[in-house]
Amino acid sequence: MACIFCDIVSGRAEASRVHEDEQVLAFMDIRPMTPGHLLVIPKQHATNLAELDPDLAGPLFATAQRLAAALRRSPLEPAGINLFLADGIAAGQEVFHVHLHVLPRNPGDGLGLRGSFQWPHRMTLDSPAGQIRNALPR
Amino acid sequence: MACIFCDIVSGRAEASRVHEDEQVLAFMDIRPMTPGHLLVIPKQHATNLAELDPDLAGPLFATAQRLAAALRRSPLEPAGINLFLADGIAAGQEVFHVHLHVLPRNPGDGLGLRGSFQWPHRMTLDSPAGQIRNALPR
Repeated sequence: MACIFCDIVSGRAEASRVHEDEQVLAFMDIRPMTPGHLLVIPKQHATNLAELDPDLAGPLFATAQRLAAALRRSPLEPAGINLFLADGIAAGQEVFHVHLHVLPRNPGDGLGLRGSFQWPHRMTLDSPAGQIRNALPR
Repeated sequence: MACIFCDIVSGRAEASRVHEDEQVLAFMDIRPMTPGHLLVIPKQHATNLAELDPDLAGPLFATAQRLAAALRRSPLEPAGINLFLADGIAAGQEVFHVHLHVLPRNPGDGLGLRGSFQWPHRMTLDSPAGQIRNALPR
Protein backbone atom coordinates (compact mmCIF):
# COMPACT_ATOMS: atom_id res chain seq x y z
CA MET A 1 0.00 0.00 0.00
CA ALA A 2 1.38 3.39 -1.00
CA CYS A 3 1.76 5.81 1.91
CA ILE A 4 2.79 9.37 1.16
CA PHE A 5 4.26 9.84 4.65
CA CYS A 6 6.34 6.65 4.35
CA ASP A 7 7.56 8.04 1.01
CA ILE A 8 8.56 11.28 2.78
CA VAL A 9 10.38 9.29 5.50
CA SER A 10 12.33 7.32 2.88
CA GLY A 11 13.07 10.42 0.80
CA ARG A 12 11.07 9.23 -2.24
CA ALA A 13 8.70 12.19 -1.76
CA GLU A 14 9.63 15.81 -1.19
CA ALA A 15 8.99 17.61 2.10
CA SER A 16 10.14 20.75 3.89
CA ARG A 17 11.76 18.99 6.83
CA VAL A 18 12.18 20.63 10.20
CA HIS A 19 13.33 17.83 12.50
CA GLU A 20 14.41 14.24 12.19
CA ASP A 21 15.68 11.72 14.70
CA GLU A 22 15.67 7.91 14.92
CA GLN A 23 11.96 7.64 15.63
CA VAL A 24 10.26 10.83 14.53
CA LEU A 25 10.10 13.15 11.50
CA ALA A 26 8.60 16.66 11.42
CA PHE A 27 7.89 18.65 8.26
CA MET A 28 5.68 21.45 6.96
CA ASP A 29 2.07 20.51 6.18
CA ILE A 30 1.71 20.93 2.42
CA ARG A 31 -1.79 22.40 3.01
CA PRO A 32 -1.12 24.79 5.92
CA MET A 33 -4.10 26.13 7.88
CA THR A 34 -1.81 28.84 9.29
CA PRO A 35 1.79 29.80 8.38
CA GLY A 36 4.21 27.41 10.06
CA HIS A 37 1.72 24.50 10.27
CA LEU A 38 3.79 21.38 11.02
CA LEU A 39 3.20 17.64 11.12
CA VAL A 40 5.02 15.26 13.47
CA ILE A 41 4.97 11.59 12.46
CA PRO A 42 6.48 8.32 13.62
CA LYS A 43 8.94 7.09 10.99
CA GLN A 44 7.62 3.55 11.43
CA HIS A 45 4.26 3.23 9.68
CA ALA A 46 1.20 3.19 11.95
CA THR A 47 -2.19 3.68 10.33
CA ASN A 48 -3.83 4.98 13.48
CA LEU A 49 -3.49 5.31 17.27
CA ALA A 50 -4.37 1.63 17.73
CA GLU A 51 -1.36 0.62 15.61
CA LEU A 52 1.03 3.17 17.13
CA ASP A 53 3.73 1.68 19.38
CA PRO A 54 3.03 3.30 22.80
CA ASP A 55 6.80 3.75 23.16
CA LEU A 56 6.54 6.35 20.36
CA ALA A 57 3.95 8.42 22.25
CA GLY A 58 6.67 10.20 24.23
CA PRO A 59 8.94 11.01 21.27
CA LEU A 60 5.97 12.26 19.22
CA PHE A 61 4.51 14.53 21.88
CA ALA A 62 7.88 15.74 23.18
CA THR A 63 8.86 16.65 19.60
CA ALA A 64 5.60 18.60 19.18
CA GLN A 65 6.38 20.37 22.46
CA ARG A 66 9.90 21.29 21.25
CA LEU A 67 8.51 22.47 17.89
CA ALA A 68 5.93 24.62 19.69
CA ALA A 69 8.78 26.26 21.61
CA ALA A 70 10.82 26.70 18.41
CA LEU A 71 7.83 28.27 16.61
CA ARG A 72 7.41 30.76 19.44
CA ARG A 73 11.12 31.65 19.31
CA SER A 74 11.13 31.85 15.48
CA PRO A 75 10.33 34.98 13.42
CA LEU A 76 6.82 33.50 12.95
CA GLU A 77 6.15 34.44 16.60
CA PRO A 78 2.70 32.84 16.98
CA ALA A 79 0.67 33.99 20.00
CA GLY A 80 -0.50 30.41 20.65
CA ILE A 81 -0.21 26.81 19.49
CA ASN A 82 -2.75 24.05 18.92
CA LEU A 83 -1.88 20.38 18.82
CA PHE A 84 -4.41 18.30 16.89
CA LEU A 85 -4.65 14.66 15.91
CA ALA A 86 -7.41 12.97 13.90
CA ASP A 87 -7.85 9.24 14.46
CA GLY A 88 -10.29 7.74 11.95
CA ILE A 89 -12.29 9.12 9.03
CA ALA A 90 -15.06 10.31 11.38
CA ALA A 91 -12.43 12.43 13.17
CA GLY A 92 -11.21 14.00 9.93
CA GLN A 93 -8.18 11.74 9.30
CA GLU A 94 -7.17 11.99 5.62
CA VAL A 95 -3.69 10.44 5.54
CA PHE A 96 -3.58 7.00 7.15
CA HIS A 97 -0.22 7.31 8.84
CA VAL A 98 -0.44 8.80 12.36
CA HIS A 99 0.35 12.52 12.35
CA LEU A 100 0.20 15.17 15.05
CA HIS A 101 -0.55 18.69 13.78
CA VAL A 102 1.34 21.62 15.35
CA LEU A 103 -0.66 24.72 14.48
CA PRO A 104 0.64 28.25 15.12
CA ARG A 105 -2.22 30.50 16.23
CA ASN A 106 -2.85 34.22 16.28
CA PRO A 107 -5.87 36.29 17.33
CA GLY A 108 -8.38 36.53 14.50
CA ASP A 109 -6.86 33.75 12.39
CA GLY A 110 -10.27 32.07 12.16
CA LEU A 111 -8.95 28.70 13.26
CA GLY A 112 -10.20 26.68 16.20
CA LEU A 113 -12.30 23.79 17.31
CA ARG A 114 -15.76 23.93 15.76
CA GLY A 115 -18.65 22.73 17.90
CA SER A 116 -20.63 23.52 20.99
CA PHE A 117 -20.57 22.15 24.50
CA GLN A 118 -23.06 21.14 27.14
CA TRP A 119 -23.26 21.47 30.92
CA PRO A 120 -24.53 18.03 31.95
CA HIS A 121 -25.30 16.95 35.50
CA ARG A 122 -22.58 15.08 37.37
CA MET A 123 -24.47 11.77 37.00
CA THR A 124 -24.41 12.20 33.22
CA LEU A 125 -20.61 12.42 33.47
CA ASP A 126 -20.15 9.63 36.02
CA SER A 127 -21.93 7.08 33.85
CA PRO A 128 -19.64 7.25 30.77
CA ALA A 129 -16.65 7.68 33.12
CA GLY A 130 -17.45 4.25 34.55
CA GLN A 131 -17.94 2.75 31.10
CA ILE A 132 -14.56 4.07 29.90
CA ARG A 133 -12.80 2.95 33.13
CA ASN A 134 -14.20 -0.55 32.62
CA ALA A 135 -12.87 -0.61 29.05
CA LEU A 136 -9.29 0.29 30.12
CA PRO A 137 -6.87 -2.65 30.21
CA ARG A 138 -6.33 -3.85 33.80
CA MET B 1 -3.00 31.15 42.51
CA ALA B 2 -6.11 28.96 42.51
CA CYS B 3 -6.09 26.26 39.84
CA ILE B 4 -9.21 24.17 39.35
CA PHE B 5 -7.23 21.25 37.89
CA CYS B 6 -4.81 21.25 40.85
CA ASP B 7 -7.92 21.20 43.08
CA ILE B 8 -9.17 18.15 41.15
CA VAL B 9 -5.78 16.43 41.53
CA SER B 10 -5.79 17.04 45.29
CA GLY B 11 -9.43 15.98 45.65
CA ARG B 12 -10.62 19.43 46.82
CA ALA B 13 -12.76 19.67 43.67
CA GLU B 14 -15.10 17.04 42.27
CA ALA B 15 -14.43 15.23 39.00
CA SER B 16 -15.61 12.11 37.19
CA ARG B 17 -12.27 10.34 37.19
CA VAL B 18 -11.34 7.75 34.60
CA HIS B 19 -7.64 7.10 35.15
CA GLU B 20 -4.98 8.05 37.66
CA ASP B 21 -1.34 7.09 38.04
CA GLU B 22 1.69 8.74 39.62
CA GLN B 23 2.06 11.39 36.93
CA VAL B 24 -1.23 11.73 35.10
CA LEU B 25 -4.93 12.17 35.84
CA ALA B 26 -7.81 11.75 33.37
CA PHE B 27 -11.41 12.81 33.97
CA MET B 28 -14.56 13.82 32.11
CA ASP B 29 -14.62 17.37 30.73
CA ILE B 30 -17.37 19.18 32.66
CA ARG B 31 -18.40 20.90 29.40
CA PRO B 32 -18.31 18.00 26.92
CA MET B 33 -18.34 18.79 23.20
CA THR B 34 -19.33 15.15 22.55
CA PRO B 35 -20.35 12.37 24.97
CA GLY B 36 -17.25 10.84 26.55
CA HIS B 37 -15.10 13.98 26.16
CA LEU B 38 -12.07 13.48 28.43
CA LEU B 39 -9.18 15.58 29.67
CA VAL B 40 -5.72 14.22 30.43
CA ILE B 41 -3.56 16.39 32.68
CA PRO B 42 -0.17 16.20 34.40
CA LYS B 43 -0.70 16.05 38.17
CA GLN B 44 2.18 18.47 38.65
CA HIS B 45 1.05 22.00 37.76
CA ALA B 46 2.27 23.33 34.40
CA THR B 47 0.60 26.45 33.03
CA ASN B 48 1.48 25.69 29.42
CA LEU B 49 3.66 23.56 27.13
CA ALA B 50 6.70 25.70 27.94
CA GLU B 51 6.37 24.81 31.64
CA LEU B 52 5.57 21.13 31.07
CA ASP B 53 8.36 18.72 32.06
CA PRO B 54 9.24 16.97 28.75
CA ASP B 55 9.42 13.71 30.71
CA LEU B 56 5.63 14.00 31.11
CA ALA B 57 5.04 14.19 27.33
CA GLY B 58 5.15 10.41 27.02
CA PRO B 59 2.83 9.62 29.96
CA LEU B 60 0.32 12.27 28.79
CA PHE B 61 0.16 11.16 25.17
CA ALA B 62 0.33 7.42 25.95
CA THR B 63 -2.57 7.87 28.40
CA ALA B 64 -4.59 9.67 25.70
CA GLN B 65 -3.81 6.77 23.35
CA ARG B 66 -5.00 4.21 25.93
CA LEU B 67 -8.15 6.25 26.62
CA ALA B 68 -8.87 6.44 22.87
CA ALA B 69 -8.67 2.64 22.75
CA ALA B 70 -10.88 2.32 25.85
CA LEU B 71 -13.47 4.72 24.37
CA ARG B 72 -13.62 2.63 21.18
CA ARG B 73 -14.08 -0.56 23.24
CA SER B 74 -16.67 1.07 25.54
CA PRO B 75 -20.44 1.20 24.93
CA LEU B 76 -19.90 4.76 23.65
CA GLU B 77 -18.34 3.20 20.52
CA PRO B 78 -17.15 6.40 18.81
CA ALA B 79 -16.26 6.08 15.11
CA GLY B 80 -13.21 8.31 15.57
CA ILE B 81 -11.18 10.26 18.11
CA ASN B 82 -9.61 13.71 18.11
CA LEU B 83 -6.80 14.76 20.38
CA PHE B 84 -6.63 18.52 20.92
CA LEU B 85 -4.47 20.80 23.02
CA ALA B 86 -4.67 24.58 23.29
CA ASP B 87 -1.50 26.38 24.35
CA GLY B 88 -2.14 30.05 25.02
CA ILE B 89 -5.21 32.29 24.95
CA ALA B 90 -4.85 32.80 21.18
CA ALA B 91 -5.12 29.02 20.78
CA GLY B 92 -8.29 28.82 22.88
CA GLN B 93 -6.72 27.82 26.22
CA GLU B 94 -9.15 28.59 29.03
CA VAL B 95 -7.75 26.67 32.01
CA PHE B 96 -4.10 27.44 32.64
CA HIS B 97 -2.98 23.95 33.58
CA VAL B 98 -1.89 21.85 30.56
CA HIS B 99 -4.69 19.54 29.38
CA LEU B 100 -5.04 17.25 26.41
CA HIS B 101 -8.60 16.79 25.14
CA VAL B 102 -9.69 13.29 24.03
CA LEU B 103 -12.80 13.82 21.90
CA PRO B 104 -14.99 10.91 20.74
CA ARG B 105 -16.23 11.58 17.20
CA ASN B 106 -19.10 10.33 15.09
CA PRO B 107 -20.25 11.25 11.58
CA GLY B 108 -22.43 14.35 11.63
CA ASP B 109 -21.52 15.39 15.18
CA GLY B 110 -20.66 18.88 13.89
CA LEU B 111 -17.27 18.90 15.60
CA GLY B 112 -13.96 19.46 13.89
CA LEU B 113 -11.21 21.89 13.15
CA ARG B 114 -12.59 25.19 11.84
CA GLY B 115 -10.54 26.96 9.20
CA SER B 116 -9.35 26.71 5.64
CA PHE B 117 -6.05 25.71 4.12
CA GLN B 118 -3.79 26.90 1.34
CA TRP B 119 -1.64 25.18 -1.30
CA PRO B 120 1.55 27.27 -1.19
CA HIS B 121 4.59 26.74 -3.40
CA ARG B 122 7.43 24.67 -1.99
CA MET B 123 9.58 27.79 -1.46
CA THR B 124 6.85 29.27 0.73
CA LEU B 125 7.13 26.13 2.90
CA ASP B 126 10.94 25.89 2.85
CA SER B 127 11.37 29.40 4.23
CA PRO B 128 9.46 28.96 7.55
CA ALA B 129 10.87 25.40 7.79
CA GLY B 130 14.36 26.93 7.93
CA GLN B 131 13.27 29.55 10.45
CA ILE B 132 11.77 26.90 12.76
CA ARG B 133 14.80 24.60 12.36
CA ASN B 134 17.07 27.49 13.36
CA ALA B 135 14.96 28.11 16.48
CA LEU B 136 15.24 24.48 17.68
CA PRO B 137 17.73 23.92 20.50
CA ARG B 138 20.98 22.44 19.14
